[in-house]
Amino acid sequence: MKSYHFNHKHILDFSRFSSQDISFILDTAESFKEISRRPIKKVPALRGNTIINLFFEPSTRTRLSFEIAAKRMSADTFNISASTSSATKGESLIDTVRNINAMKPDVIIVRHSHSGAPHMIARHTEGSVINAGDGIHEHPSQGLLDLLTVRDHKKSLDNLKIAIIGDILHSRVAHSDIIGFTTMGSKVYIYGPATFLPRSLSSMGAIICSSMEEALTDADVVMTLRIQKERQNDPLLPSFREYSKLYGINQRRIQLAKPDAIIMHPGPINRGIELAPDVADDPRRSVILDQVTNGVAVRMALLYLVIGAS
Amino acid sequence: MKSYHFNHKHILDFSRFSSQDISFILDTAESFKEISRRPIKKVPALRGNTIINLFFEPSTRTRLSFEIAAKRMSADTFNISASTSSATKGESLIDTVRNINAMKPDVIIVRHSHSGAPHMIARHTEGSVINAGDGIHEHPSQGLLDLLTVRDHKKSLDNLKIAIIGDILHSRVAHSDIIGFTTMGSKVYIYGPATFLPRSLSSMGAIICSSMEEALTDADVVMTLRIQKERQNDPLLPSFREYSKLYGINQRRIQLAKPDAIIMHPGPINRGIELAPDVADDPRRSVILDQVTNGVAVRMALLYLVIGAS
Amino acid sequence: MKSYHFNHKHILDFSRFSSQDISFILDTAESFKEISRRPIKKVPALRGNTIINLFFEPSTRTRLSFEIAAKRMSADTFNISASTSSATKGESLIDTVRNINAMKPDVIIVRHSHSGAPHMIARHTEGSVINAGDGIHEHPSQGLLDLLTVRDHKKSLDNLKIAIIGDILHSRVAHSDIIGFTTMGSKVYIYGPATFLPRSLSSMGAIICSSMEEALTDADVVMTLRIQKERQNDPLLPSFREYSKLYGINQRRIQLAKPDAIIMHPGPINRGIELAPDVADDPRRSVILDQVTNGVAVRMALLYLVIGAS
Repeated sequence: MKSYHFNHKHILDFSRFSSQDISFILDTAESFKEISRRPIKKVPALRGNTIINLFFEPSTRTRLSFEIAAKRMSADTFNISASTSSATKGESLIDTVRNINAMKPDVIIVRHSHSGAPHMIARHTEGSVINAGDGIHEHPSQGLLDLLTVRDHKKSLDNLKIAIIGDILHSRVAHSDIIGFTTMGSKVYIYGPATFLPRSLSSMGAIICSSMEEALTDADVVMTLRIQKERQNDPLLPSFREYSKLYGINQRRIQLAKPDAIIMHPGPINRGIELAPDVADDPRRSVILDQVTNGVAVRMALLYLVIGAS
Repeated sequence: MKSYHFNHKHILDFSRFSSQDISFILDTAESFKEISRRPIKKVPALRGNTIINLFFEPSTRTRLSFEIAAKRMSADTFNISASTSSATKGESLIDTVRNINAMKPDVIIVRHSHSGAPHMIARHTEGSVINAGDGIHEHPSQGLLDLLTVRDHKKSLDNLKIAIIGDILHSRVAHSDIIGFTTMGSKVYIYGPATFLPRSLSSMGAIICSSMEEALTDADVVMTLRIQKERQNDPLLPSFREYSKLYGINQRRIQLAKPDAIIMHPGPINRGIELAPDVADDPRRSVILDQVTNGVAVRMALLYLVIGAS
Repeated sequence: MKSYHFNHKHILDFSRFSSQDISFILDTAESFKEISRRPIKKVPALRGNTIINLFFEPSTRTRLSFEIAAKRMSADTFNISASTSSATKGESLIDTVRNINAMKPDVIIVRHSHSGAPHMIARHTEGSVINAGDGIHEHPSQGLLDLLTVRDHKKSLDNLKIAIIGDILHSRVAHSDIIGFTTMGSKVYIYGPATFLPRSLSSMGAIICSSMEEALTDADVVMTLRIQKERQNDPLLPSFREYSKLYGINQRRIQLAKPDAIIMHPGPINRGIELAPDVADDPRRSVILDQVTNGVAVRMALLYLVIGAS
C-alpha cells in the first residue's frame, strides 16, 4: 500500500479498477463526507477547475449530485443538455467534444444513451472523462456509491452475499455493481424475468439464480432495480401487477435474507412495483437515502482523484 | 424589540408572521439593498451554503431574482426544473424531496402548481423551505417585496388604503398582500370580475368592493394584477377588450386615487389590458421596477434569515 | 497610442470599432490566453459582477464560451433561455429587459433572431450589452476571435487576402468578419450561390467574386460558412450534393490558395457539405479549434473591457 498511486485519468468502467483502486476511492470519499455536514460546505481543493456536465439523456439526481460535489470542492461547473446542444444542428459527437475540449475543461462528465460514448469522448479530450451512465453498459459512480454504502453498514466488502433483483440486462448500475462487488471479494446473486437474465452476465462474475429464494436466502444486501415504465409495452415484460407479484420485494420475501440485511435501490423507486413502500421506508433495513448522500462524497472523490491523476 | 428573535426556519405563508417579523425582514432587506449598488456586488455571508431552486412551474424572473440574491450572498445555487426532473420518471414528490434532502441542501426554494406543496416539502427536509409560489395559495417573497416597496414610498405601512384590482381569486400574490398589508395595519380593498371576488376573501381581511370607485377612491396604492391569457377561453371571464374597459387601470381612473398614489404590478404586464401603458410608465406614480429591485433585497434577507434560524 | 482609452460600454457591431479599438481588444485577449492554460484557471478581475446570458435562440457553444469566460474572471453568471422566459407569457422584450435591468446586472449578453435587438436592449439597461448574434446582422465576438486567430497565424492583419465562401447574405459571422478584416487593412473576397451574394455586401467593403478561382487564388485565409440545414427546402438553394460540388472546400480547391493558407469555419461543421473532412482536420492548415480556444480569451477581454468602460 505504501507505493500505491491512483493513476486513473478517466472513470469509464469498473473493469479497469483493482480492489486497491476501489478501496482508495472509497477511503477518499469517506474522508470527504464530513464536508457536507459542515455549516460551510466548501473546500478550496478544485478552485479554478472547469467541470462540464455533458448530458445527452435527461437526469436530475445524477447531474445534481455531480454539480453539488463539484461546487463543494470550489470548482466551476457548466451544464450542457442534449436538447439545447448543437447535436440538434447535426454536429457529430466527435466535433462537439473537440469543441468543448478547445475551451480547456478539466473534467467532462458524460451521460449518453450509447454504450461506449464516454470512452470515445475520452479519446478526443485532453482533460478527464467520468462516465455518468452510458447506455446499458455501466454507471461507475453509482456502483462506487453502492459499494461505499455497503461498506459503511457491513464494515467490509469481503465475503458478502449481494442479491440484485430485476431487469439486470438493461441496468448499467447492476453491471457496475456486479463487477465492483465481485472485485472486492463478495458474491453477487442475480434474479429477475428470464429474458433479462442472459447467460452472458455470468462472465461478469454474477451467479444467475433460478428462483427468488435462491437469490435472497441469507443475503447481506438486497438491491432492487427500477422497472422502466418506458418498457411497459415490451411483450417480453410482465405487467406491473404481475411483475410486483413475481419479482417485487416485500416484507414477506425480505425475511429470506439475513436478519440484518440492508435494502438498496438506485432510484427513482416505483413504489409498489419493484419495492413495497414499507420495505423502502423500513428504518432498520433501508439505506436508500444513504446511497444518495454517499453519492455526493463519491463524486467529490472522483473529481478530486481524476484531476490529481491528470 | 430588545428580546426579538426571528425564528422562522421556513417561509411558507404570511399567516405565520407577526408584524414584528415582517418589520424585521423588511429592515434586513433594506440593509442589504446597497450590496446590489456596489461595483462588487457580493458579500461572503452565505459562502458554502447549498441553495436549490426547485421549480415545478416555469419562471424566469422569480428564479433569477432568487439566484441573484443567493449568489450575491456567496451561496452555491442549483436549478432544477420540472421538465428535466425525475418527475417525468414517475417519482413521487416526497421521494424527490427526500433525495434532494439527502444531498444536504441548506435551502430549497419551491414553486409548484399545487397549493400546499412547499408545506409538504418542509416536512420532509432538514433544511429550510421558501415558498416561491404554490398554486393559488401564496407567494410570500412577492408579498414582502410589495410591502418593502410601499414602505419605501409611503414611509410607513400603517393606515394606508391599498386597492388591488383584478383576478383576486387566482392570484397568490394578492393573497400574500392582503394578509401582509392587513397585518401591518393597512386596509386592503379588492375589486374585479364578480366570479373572482368570492366572499371567502374577506376572511383574509380584505374589503370586497362593489365598484371601481369604491376601491380606488383616495387609495394610497393601486395594484393591478396580471390577467392570465391562459384563462382567455374561460367562459366566466370577459374578453380582453371588455376586461380592459371594465377593470383596466388608466389615467382617468387613477385620478380617483390620492394625488400621490403609487401604481404597482407583480409583472409581467399585459400592456393595454389590465394596465394602460402610460400609467405603467408614469414616472410620478409607477414603482413597478422598484418592486423588481426590492425583490432581490428581500430574497437576500429571506435566505440569510432562514439559514440563521435553522 | 499613449492617449488611447477604450470607451465602448456596449459591443454591438464592428462598425463602431476603430482599428485601434480592435488591436486593443485583441491585445487584451492575447494577454488573457494563458489563464486558460493554468491549473487554476481563474483570476479575481470580475468578482462580484453579475453577467446574464439572455439567449432567445438556442446555442450551446457561444453560451458556454461566454459562461466559461465569465467564470474564469470570477464573475457570477445567470442563464436565461427564451423557451423558459416570460417571453412565453407575452411580455414585451422591452419589459423583459427593464425587469432584468432592475436586478442590476453588469453585463447582458444577448442572442436574438431579430437584427438590432441588442441595440434596443442597450437603450433600456444601465449595464453593458454584448451582442452574441442578432438575426443576420452581426456576431462581433465571433468576428473578433476570427481576427485573433488570423493574427496569431499570420503575425499581422494587414494586407491579407481573406476568402469567405458560402451563404454570405444570412451569415452574421461573415458580416462581422468583412467589416473587421477590412478595418484592419486586409481585403475580403466573398463567393457563394448568386442569390446569397447581394450587391449590397460591397458597401461593407467586401469584393464580390464571380468564381471560386477568383476568391481562392493566393488567399492567405479560407473561411467556409455553415450551410444551414434548416434552409434545405429553400428553392433558391442548391441541394447539399450540388452545394458540395459547387461551393464545398476540398483538398483540390484549397491548392488555389497560398501554400501556407489557413482554413477557418465558425462551426458547427457540416462535414462533406461545405467542408471536406480531410481539410477540416488538416493539421497544417485547419485552425478551427484555435478559433474556439481564442473565443474564450476574446470573451474574457470583452467582459473585462466593457465593465471597465462603464
